[in-house]
Amino acid sequence: MKKSAIRELSLVRKGCILGVGMLVSSAASANDDLMSSARQIFKSIPSVTPEVKDNPVTREKVELGKILFFDPRLSASGVISCNTCHNLGAGGVDSGPTSVGHGWQLGPRRAPTVYNAVFNVAQFWDGRAADLKSQAKGPVQASVEMNTTPDRLLSTLNSMTDYVVMFKKAFPGEATSVTFDNFAKAIEAFEATLITPAAPFDRYLEGDTHALDDQQKAGLVLFMERGCSSCHNGINVGGQDYFPFGAVERPAAPLLPAADKGRFAVTKAAGDEYVFRSAPLRNVALRAPYFHSGQVWSLKQAVGVMSETQLGVKLSDKEENDIVSFLNSLTGQRPKIEYPILPTRTDATPRPALDK
Amino acid sequence: MKKSAIRELSLVRKGCILGVGMLVSSAASANDDLMSSARQIFKSIPSVTPEVKDNPVTREKVELGKILFFDPRLSASGVISCNTCHNLGAGGVDSGPTSVGHGWQLGPRRAPTVYNAVFNVAQFWDGRAADLKSQAKGPVQASVEMNTTPDRLLSTLNSMTDYVVMFKKAFPGEATSVTFDNFAKAIEAFEATLITPAAPFDRYLEGDTHALDDQQKAGLVLFMERGCSSCHNGINVGGQDYFPFGAVERPAAPLLPAADKGRFAVTKAAGDEYVFRSAPLRNVALRAPYFHSGQVWSLKQAVGVMSETQLGVKLSDKEENDIVSFLNSLTGQRPKIEYPILPTRTDATPRPALDK
Repeated sequence: MKKSAIRELSLVRKGCILGVGMLVSSAASANDDLMSSARQIFKSIPSVTPEVKDNPVTREKVELGKILFFDPRLSASGVISCNTCHNLGAGGVDSGPTSVGHGWQLGPRRAPTVYNAVFNVAQFWDGRAADLKSQAKGPVQASVEMNTTPDRLLSTLNSMTDYVVMFKKAFPGEATSVTFDNFAKAIEAFEATLITPAAPFDRYLEGDTHALDDQQKAGLVLFMERGCSSCHNGINVGGQDYFPFGAVERPAAPLLPAADKGRFAVTKAAGDEYVFRSAPLRNVALRAPYFHSGQVWSLKQAVGVMSETQLGVKLSDKEENDIVSFLNSLTGQRPKIEYPILPTRTDATPRPALDK
Repeated sequence: MKKSAIRELSLVRKGCILGVGMLVSSAASANDDLMSSARQIFKSIPSVTPEVKDNPVTREKVELGKILFFDPRLSASGVISCNTCHNLGAGGVDSGPTSVGHGWQLGPRRAPTVYNAVFNVAQFWDGRAADLKSQAKGPVQASVEMNTTPDRLLSTLNSMTDYVVMFKKAFPGEATSVTFDNFAKAIEAFEATLITPAAPFDRYLEGDTHALDDQQKAGLVLFMERGCSSCHNGINVGGQDYFPFGAVERPAAPLLPAADKGRFAVTKAAGDEYVFRSAPLRNVALRAPYFHSGQVWSLKQAVGVMSETQLGVKLSDKEENDIVSFLNSLTGQRPKIEYPILPTRTDATPRPALDK
């Protein structure tokens, strides 16, 4: 559906331009109108952990999930934890461009952030996992990432009493609490707490007109008028739907490697070639390099690439700066995380398997 | 000085056996005597950060040092931080056997723990660094570890304003605060806080006779009587001096690889072949696998190897269990550490260099 997707994009863009144009044309209430217009398109990050489908978020699950998230022994090598590629001290991503995994292999795509991932319509760049509990089962098994198996992972967890006790507390009343499903659910529960409220843009959406400065407001106007918000909208300023990368103009080959056809691998629909989930832009300023290929290191350059390839627009230098300034207002407050003490290995714990 | 070292060991051992033997022979005050004897040989971990030579430990240095410790971008690849091999969530070590570094290369030796390292006579298995500030300069440059250069490291730090500001606060009044020396000093200051007081054995040394159970006390008696404490003594129950590995009997080849001659590489003295700093045994139960080669995965087996190779003694199963029980009493309280938020990269930050 590439062509119809482009048509849709174009229509939404026109609507957006008209709508915002009308609003900001009224000089007296321009500020109020901009806020009102933004509120129709975006939503602020809540300050409390959201509910998760089919997985009530309890304190016990979150605590267990945190330990699992930081435990490198869940990888075959004993070297790689979830946090290796989704570094919570950074923007929930690694140093890029794509992730280094088992045996120093390079993964095919840039690590997506775990921060606010709970708000995305689905997980991974191609949306192949419906939710975070489904997502959590992927990287541990991927041969270029953590390279383990569910059996080995469960052996590791069962070898340490502290883990077994924590699973029992997190999943009470279950005959077998240490399961691959529950491992994934605990990680999902922890990841649901990884939200970053109180960004300047959140405070703006919540009514504080001074939370954005004039340049950021100019960037916000451009972001909506030029059509960026056609794909990047909602609570995560993206992450809500799928769109072709190169809707108007095909990006340079390094940015869009021919072999990675995106969502096509999931749906097998011809129209889904080079279609990806729109990138959620929360905390985007913390997350260079950009795009699924991780080949663009400057946010300003990324804005330029997007406007040309997706909108067919060449922005001026000032416009790019204004939009970058707005994007900087999307940086929220990362939660305080006490680095977890891991259960101690026992003689029954599988030893590291380093071979590629 | 291998032979004289063995003679010394033997003399110390005899003295120790006699001394302890006399003390514990008095039935009425056996407990008091054991405590008194232990106090002559060991010292408890303090509850406050110790002073560090030529590097006053300030809050600003500690906070900076913590961030540096956790920042993988200080490695060429952007993948490996100090914490990768000295995991503070484990015993300050990695999963073993030896460390995985740049390009998935295996280092030659097991990662030593950073916990309580400030109390060691010198750093590394062979004591080649006089202190932690000297040690901190090693792994970042080692090609099999973090594989960077001082220049690249300083470029990385200088590229991020937050780092520059933190260095200025940590090293006030210096014309250039972002230096390789100051990088190392900040890490040393943070590592000085990585002490683990309040182990059962500490509480015992501080006067609580019930802090050790009967089996642990029996293990303590054996530990002193059999001569373990000849090398493993002081505040770190080791880490205070150098001894030949294989003082009485040469360990099996995998445990003592012929190519690694230990302290000989530092001093070039023939008597220092296969001489190593005695392992500090604080938190040893958290730190399998054991020895510089990381080839022994069970603490009980490690005790057996030590008694045979260093003391020429074959312990009974019960004796090994008693000593392991005592060693378990050396597990202290690890500090609570808030996982740091890292400064955000800029366009000037060197990009990851993954090539081997």
